[in-house]
Amino acid sequence: MQIFVINCGSSSIKYQLIAMPEAKLVCSGLVERIGTDESVLKHKVFKDNDEFVQVKQTGNVDHGGALAAVVEIMMDKVNGVITSADEIHAVGHRVLHGGKAFFKTIQVSEAVKAQIETLYPLGPLHLPANLTGIQVAEKLFPSSAQVAVFDTAFHQTMPPVAYRYAISNDYYEKNDVRVYGFHGTSHKYVSARAADYLRNPEAKIITIHLGNGCSMAAVNAGNCLDTSMGLGPLSGLIMGTRCGDIDASVVFHLMETYGFSIPEMQTLLNKKSGMLGLCGFSDMRDVKAAIKDGDEAAKLAYEMYAYRIKKYIGSYAAILNGLDAIVFTGGIGENDGAMRALSVKNLEFFGITYNENTAVISVDGITEYQNAGARVKVLVVPTNEELQIAKECYDLINL
Amino acid sequence: MQIFVINCGSSSIKYQLIAMPEAKLVCSGLVERIGTDESVLKHKVFKDNDEFVQVKQTGNVDHGGALAAVVEIMMDKVNGVITSADEIHAVGHRVLHGGKAFFKTIQVSEAVKAQIETLYPLGPLHLPANLTGIQVAEKLFPSSAQVAVFDTAFHQTMPPVAYRYAISNDYYEKNDVRVYGFHGTSHKYVSARAADYLRNPEAKIITIHLGNGCSMAAVNAGNCLDTSMGLGPLSGLIMGTRCGDIDASVVFHLMETYGFSIPEMQTLLNKKSGMLGLCGFSDMRDVKAAIKDGDEAAKLAYEMYAYRIKKYIGSYAAILNGLDAIVFTGGIGENDGAMRALSVKNLEFFGITYNENTAVISVDGITEYQNAGARVKVLVVPTNEELQIAKECYDLINL
Repeated sequence: MQIFVINCGSSSIKYQLIAMPEAKLVCSGLVERIGTDESVLKHKVFKDNDEFVQVKQTGNVDHGGALAAVVEIMMDKVNGVITSADEIHAVGHRVLHGGKAFFKTIQVSEAVKAQIETLYPLGPLHLPANLTGIQVAEKLFPSSAQVAVFDTAFHQTMPPVAYRYAISNDYYEKNDVRVYGFHGTSHKYVSARAADYLRNPEAKIITIHLGNGCSMAAVNAGNCLDTSMGLGPLSGLIMGTRCGDIDASVVFHLMETYGFSIPEMQTLLNKKSGMLGLCGFSDMRDVKAAIKDGDEAAKLAYEMYAYRIKKYIGSYAAILNGLDAIVFTGGIGENDGAMRALSVKNLEFFGITYNENTAVISVDGITEYQNAGARVKVLVVPTNEELQIAKECYDLINL
Repeated sequence: MQIFVINCGSSSIKYQLIAMPEAKLVCSGLVERIGTDESVLKHKVFKDNDEFVQVKQTGNVDHGGALAAVVEIMMDKVNGVITSADEIHAVGHRVLHGGKAFFKTIQVSEAVKAQIETLYPLGPLHLPANLTGIQVAEKLFPSSAQVAVFDTAFHQTMPPVAYRYAISNDYYEKNDVRVYGFHGTSHKYVSARAADYLRNPEAKIITIHLGNGCSMAAVNAGNCLDTSMGLGPLSGLIMGTRCGDIDASVVFHLMETYGFSIPEMQTLLNKKSGMLGLCGFSDMRDVKAAIKDGDEAAKLAYEMYAYRIKKYIGSYAAILNGLDAIVFTGGIGENDGAMRALSVKNLEFFGITYNENTAVISVDGITEYQNAGARVKVLVVPTNEELQIAKECYDLINL
């Protein structure tokens, strides 16, 4: 069964074609700069242990035109992977925000689309693009099931003590203001893989997703109990350009001092803060190069990034009242051993240790980093959100 | 030696006269509604194990007139406690915010006053009143040392990873935007008393101050490592009317949705949120009465209040990498056993237990609540900020 996974942004479409249940990646790609003359499609085909890339100028197309170009290249006479759009059993759409309405993966209907539109205020940048992706896919894959997979859904098991803010009930009831959390597909995927690996479906796990965005989740027996992002993807950990947790007094103080408008202040905290604000580099590789050159601001930024993770580990260990494993994932979580080491340093009180030298590569790509005999496993589990979306689609249409 | 301790607000003056080093409270009182026709002085004298209260209308006075009325009643022919203002060796002023400039208690000079004025943007509501208090005390107690005790000073031992926000360095360097923390005098007092009680000057202690404002601190060997309030007293724990930690996205979302101005949004989060916003009651006694009457919103608010404390306990245990004692203080911390119990419930993983029945009243007013043999002591230490201020004055002028 072929599942086509789409992540549709305001000017881009990312996709993967995955054969299920064997979880085999068939092709993947990206159309960028949609709506401009520079719009370009990069398509990668995986065949017989080989892979090759095709690049194609699409001309100035809209999202429909961009996706049509993808369908065309997938049906290419020479290098095609399908002969007809009908071979796609389901299209899995990554949707940023499910609000209170969507707590699980769901097949798209007219009602679902209408409901997503009502959630625009919660995800004004992403949701319109996500819906556009659904609409163009409906036209190009008319015989496929359209499935919406929400980035917030996994966190919907949080109890009210975790998801409510201490503000007037009205804002919760009338305006849906609450903690939603994001990266749910990743937290779900890696926590489930870790629980399988531990052979303990009841495991108490802290998942740490460190990529462009960063978030953590406390997971107990497969259920999310708390997460570090909130109404939007700004709070919690320090990120490349986002501040993470910050005293609301700082927002007021800077708006008053500099006369910033709301959009200016949003841009400041979302695009110019985090590692970029602290040291001038948003990419962790640049931060680390600067540290090697003796850059003190970069060193502090790196330490703050780790310190914030450590505080959340403590917090979530308290919520869980125990801990079986800490799971690092995402680009930084998977690749930056120094960051992993620093963020779990001096946590022996929790039974947490870290030792890069004792790392054991397991057969299924999960690596252990704790000392021998340590109470808590420290794992790296590579995330695969597209595969998780494909799995959810597969499970849904096979119900 | 007589030390006069003042907490001067915009329309009130609270005071205590304390004999040092014996730490004996001589008299205390409060002038309220200064600058109105209803201005009233309530004065309490402690003499020979007896105490009695005098109430006096002061007429419409300014802060100088209000303090003059206090001096007059302290020199009362019948019930006076001093015969001349010269008997006051030092006046200890509680000052809300010391910014980066003041990291310890200091004798007031012209330079100190000028410096406090430069900090007004950090404490616009409190600092002008605090400075007024210093100015009127200089006139009425011309032969006394004037001493400034900053509510932020104790937290100045925090490392940069704890006190910096992940925003542009400019705002730290030019605008002094960082975590300061408040209730420092209380956290210092109760952590020092707990360390004495434990006979362990190196103790790892989490202090939990729960009053009208609420904050926590991680204290290691007498040094504050982190605290829950930030630039202002809004962040961290849920309070009577303040929201504590909140995603900055919520601030933007509500300002955009309702068109709130900055002052309106500040008022909303400072005066209409917290327990009041969640259930309509800001006083914990009212919240508990409502819970008894089956009020679900009050129950959730109470549980959220405890949940937030628990998250910080975990966070600070991680920072400390160990824990000798948790110390509850402040009106709610000292008196609400159910809140103490709920906030440390299910923390056995940390070696924390709670048992109201095993409470042992010690000779010096400190009570233990952990189970026998538990690794972590759970203590109530009644706070006494005025006494701490008097001690700081005494120590400073006896250097």
